[in-house]
Amino acid sequence: MQLLRVDMKQGKTRWEPVPSVYTQLGGRGLTARILLEEIPPTCDALGPLNKLIIAPGLLGGAGVTTAGRLSIGAKSPLTGGVKEANAGGTAGDLLPRLDLKAIVIEGQPETTDIFILVVRNGSAELVPAGAARGLGTYATAEHLWKKYGTGCTILSIGQAGEQLLSGAAIACTGEGEQHSNIAARGGLGAVMGSKGLKAVVLDKAGAKSVPFADPDVFRTASKRFAQELINDPKLGPKGGTHLYGTASITAAVNEMGSLPTRNFSNGSFESSEGLRGETLRETVLARQGKIGTRCMPGCVIACRNVYVDDAGEPIVGTLQYETIALVGSNLGLGNLDDVGRLNYMCNDFGLDTIETGAALGVALEAGLGKYGDYESIAGLLRQVGEGTTLGRLIGSGAVTTGRVLGVRRVPAALGQAMPGYDPRSLKGNGVTYATSPQGADHTAGNAFGARKEVNPLGVEGQRQLSLKLQIISAMLDSTGLCLFARPPVISDPQLMVDMLNGRYGWGWTKEDLDRSNRDLLRTELEFNRQAGITAADYRIPEYMRTEPLAPHGATFDVPDSELDAVFEAL
Amino acid sequence: MQLLRVDMKQGKTRWEPVPSVYTQLGGRGLTARILLEEIPPTCDALGPLNKLIIAPGLLGGAGVTTAGRLSIGAKSPLTGGVKEANAGGTAGDLLPRLDLKAIVIEGQPETTDIFILVVRNGSAELVPAGAARGLGTYATAEHLWKKYGTGCTILSIGQAGEQLLSGAAIACTGEGEQHSNIAARGGLGAVMGSKGLKAVVLDKAGAKSVPFADPDVFRTASKRFAQELINDPKLGPKGGTHLYGTASITAAVNEMGSLPTRNFSNGSFESSEGLRGETLRETVLARQGKIGTRCMPGCVIACRNVYVDDAGEPIVGTLQYETIALVGSNLGLGNLDDVGRLNYMCNDFGLDTIETGAALGVALEAGLGKYGDYESIAGLLRQVGEGTTLGRLIGSGAVTTGRVLGVRRVPAALGQAMPGYDPRSLKGNGVTYATSPQGADHTAGNAFGARKEVNPLGVEGQRQLSLKLQIISAMLDSTGLCLFARPPVISDPQLMVDMLNGRYGWGWTKEDLDRSNRDLLRTELEFNRQAGITAADYRIPEYMRTEPLAPHGATFDVPDSELDAVFEAL
Repeated sequence: MQLLRVDMKQGKTRWEPVPSVYTQLGGRGLTARILLEEIPPTCDALGPLNKLIIAPGLLGGAGVTTAGRLSIGAKSPLTGGVKEANAGGTAGDLLPRLDLKAIVIEGQPETTDIFILVVRNGSAELVPAGAARGLGTYATAEHLWKKYGTGCTILSIGQAGEQLLSGAAIACTGEGEQHSNIAARGGLGAVMGSKGLKAVVLDKAGAKSVPFADPDVFRTASKRFAQELINDPKLGPKGGTHLYGTASITAAVNEMGSLPTRNFSNGSFESSEGLRGETLRETVLARQGKIGTRCMPGCVIACRNVYVDDAGEPIVGTLQYETIALVGSNLGLGNLDDVGRLNYMCNDFGLDTIETGAALGVALEAGLGKYGDYESIAGLLRQVGEGTTLGRLIGSGAVTTGRVLGVRRVPAALGQAMPGYDPRSLKGNGVTYATSPQGADHTAGNAFGARKEVNPLGVEGQRQLSLKLQIISAMLDSTGLCLFARPPVISDPQLMVDMLNGRYGWGWTKEDLDRSNRDLLRTELEFNRQAGITAADYRIPEYMRTEPLAPHGATFDVPDSELDAVFEAL
Repeated sequence: MQLLRVDMKQGKTRWEPVPSVYTQLGGRGLTARILLEEIPPTCDALGPLNKLIIAPGLLGGAGVTTAGRLSIGAKSPLTGGVKEANAGGTAGDLLPRLDLKAIVIEGQPETTDIFILVVRNGSAELVPAGAARGLGTYATAEHLWKKYGTGCTILSIGQAGEQLLSGAAIACTGEGEQHSNIAARGGLGAVMGSKGLKAVVLDKAGAKSVPFADPDVFRTASKRFAQELINDPKLGPKGGTHLYGTASITAAVNEMGSLPTRNFSNGSFESSEGLRGETLRETVLARQGKIGTRCMPGCVIACRNVYVDDAGEPIVGTLQYETIALVGSNLGLGNLDDVGRLNYMCNDFGLDTIETGAALGVALEAGLGKYGDYESIAGLLRQVGEGTTLGRLIGSGAVTTGRVLGVRRVPAALGQAMPGYDPRSLKGNGVTYATSPQGADHTAGNAFGARKEVNPLGVEGQRQLSLKLQIISAMLDSTGLCLFARPPVISDPQLMVDMLNGRYGWGWTKEDLDRSNRDLLRTELEFNRQAGITAADYRIPEYMRTEPLAPHGATFDVPDSELDAVFEAL
């Protein structure tokens, strides 16, 4: 496999063999390692020294179900530390079949020109963005499909990324017209914008099958993996994740008092009924929308939906839990139509719905709109696309919005907004938010699934739980697996080892796999350390330690010493 | 002497004896020590755990010329580290004569009420701000003088502090109607606003003479100190500082290519002629304004002016160099009338002219106004007082303005905007900007005066020079001395030792004085370390290392290793 290096200053592309230090790395593991090896951790995240790295997981392209997540990494303009965000779509499967282990975007044009990177027929070139400039991500994809064919996968930024806003995301197309796959977190869209890169076009013509070191070992393991997912009562065809999507957890999170409500001022939302997975399913089916669609080819879980309006017209490609929490209950909205419309706007502008939902919550607390009032909220969000100062502010994320508007109650850790679980009543997530090298993140080590093993309101065991989950996340994000697909490989890690050995012939043991996952976290922590991030930064905001959260009256009371000790056992 | 503690949560005040650990500390030394002893360095700067400390220098109230500077300290919302800003006016002289070593403002009201702290007749009380709410600092002082008498000294915040903006300052009144004395830097006005404190009224009725341990030793030393200042060719009655004010250096800074011009994109300004001290003097005298006024009672240097318009009406209480550089050449303005009007607005809103000038420069680079166009610039500044989102943004300082507007070229260190010397062509100042625990600051260790000893464009000797100057600054800021008054005490430190021993009877040696100054820096560095500030933060922005500055084509090329080594010899 090869690395494609793109020099945005010179406007040149270069294919090169993968350096040996990167060979056994993929996805988040590869992006983290390239960052630590190749950029100064103290560099200006939006300057020429940062690099944007696009890397499929180790199992991408091999036909493993759910293993097509695409990792995108860079130093984050939001956290100032290492960042990886991953997304579904077709790129994670396609890149390895184009013989690409990663695309590394380097440097910065000296003009304000912006470009499209076109990868086709074994070559790559930069062409002027032309009419794509200023378009939203949906229109950008339409424009480029028209030009390069609908067989292409498109990664693009919208107005937010072009404006270099720290809440900007990168949108990735999937099968057919569906392209609500967003590498959302940490402002990677702003990094892409700072490189003068509007979009990447990946043409699947010429894609090949990936080679296998031991096809039998691989096939046996990957088949068993898929079968175990299908057999799983939660994930299989009759499971909640498939039937209700990620919104299947809304009711449970609300019940445990952890549902972000009106800028994280309550853990329980009186109108959460309207945001439940059951409501979503009924509404979509009644309106002739779609339930059980996929973000990646071949996924056996199929947790997505096409959320439609009364007339059956699509509102947004999929409505997922974190968005429902952050732009729903967090803004006092209990209606999925409202949430879906805000979600579409975020996707189109190329914005992280979590960061933007949190920023909007802060703006509402400052009095710039009203909780529960769709029109005032949509009016604020629309301004991001328009590029007004207020729009730029909200697009810059929750922390900056709070700073400028004088709001102290900002739900964020390491500069990044919290996803859909208030850490006061799900303390394991608080430990992960505080200590993950990624900042507050719902995929870096989510304790929701372990709520029956470790008391979400207690302190005991949270630090051990968070570390365990963070190591699992490292594995998933390196191999390209979806978070939901973890049960089979957790209960039998040999399954993962066999898939990797079958694909690459490394002769790994379970210990090698474990070491690799831990190494990823060590790499990220080392990057952050060199970037100047210390224990003082790996914290939950002060107000969450003192303001009790209804309905349990819980504060975040995990001692700092416990946070500092999370990685002692790494 | 006593400490006055003001509990803003309970609305109560308490006088207490000075704890022994604070006895030999004053001004910046005392504020730093109280912060390290009494607040968690990681606390939310605008939350209830931060404290705002108002402390005169050790020689305040004793009738030493130029020694009436008032220190105000807190954790900074701008830098996230320790902060002290000092100002002239009458408070630094008055507080010790009211037997007050410091006022410590603690806690935070649980409502949005705001208050006035009134200190008179040996008591202190909090009263509702009433009609003072929302007023600028000039109108606040007028309002409070009407109520409490013109004999009172007023410390107040304007609209910027009430809005909790990180560029907000605290204004301090002086003799008569003149009150352009600003404790400007680091967002202390926002901290005061976060405490719900609009103003402090200090009634001089009941003020006494301070006691002297050895009046003869004190008198001999303080007289010699004053006489040496009078005899100094630069500082005496015929010296440039008196005749032309701080603007006397405009021409020299321009000539050395270090004058911030159009957002620090040039070190030389084609219209700098209009900003020179000579121009200022001629204009003021021709218009019947005042030259050679004082910020503190009894100052023998008297570097201030009352800058007036064509009709002889005051535009602003004094025009000083840093303001002239930051809201003059840095915004492309070569006319002192324009600068004076912007200066007045900053003072009235309660804004740091350096931070705000830098933020405006960034906003102009983003295209929100035009360099050299007073109307567009004043229009932006006016919005801070009006509280629009754009106004709030600019009032939040240069770094936040750059982040939201997508501008990478932000002249700041440790989150705080640079004063009137581009560090690329005055590298000693660059070393101080980068390494001072205060962030970029012109009084923390200014190498301009040493430009003939150490080549401003060279690397050699800068680190040693910066440390020397930072230690001297620590002495000045602890004793209440003005930066200009340093020559006599530098050439003979025994003079300072005698004044302190004469006042307090400590029996100090020169070594004790030196230890005390170094201890101050150690205290501040330790606070910052605990706040999570590391070597990665003590840096000059990346673009200044790569973009050459006209006219010398200089970059900031002092190696990081030299920056890291500054305090090795502390």
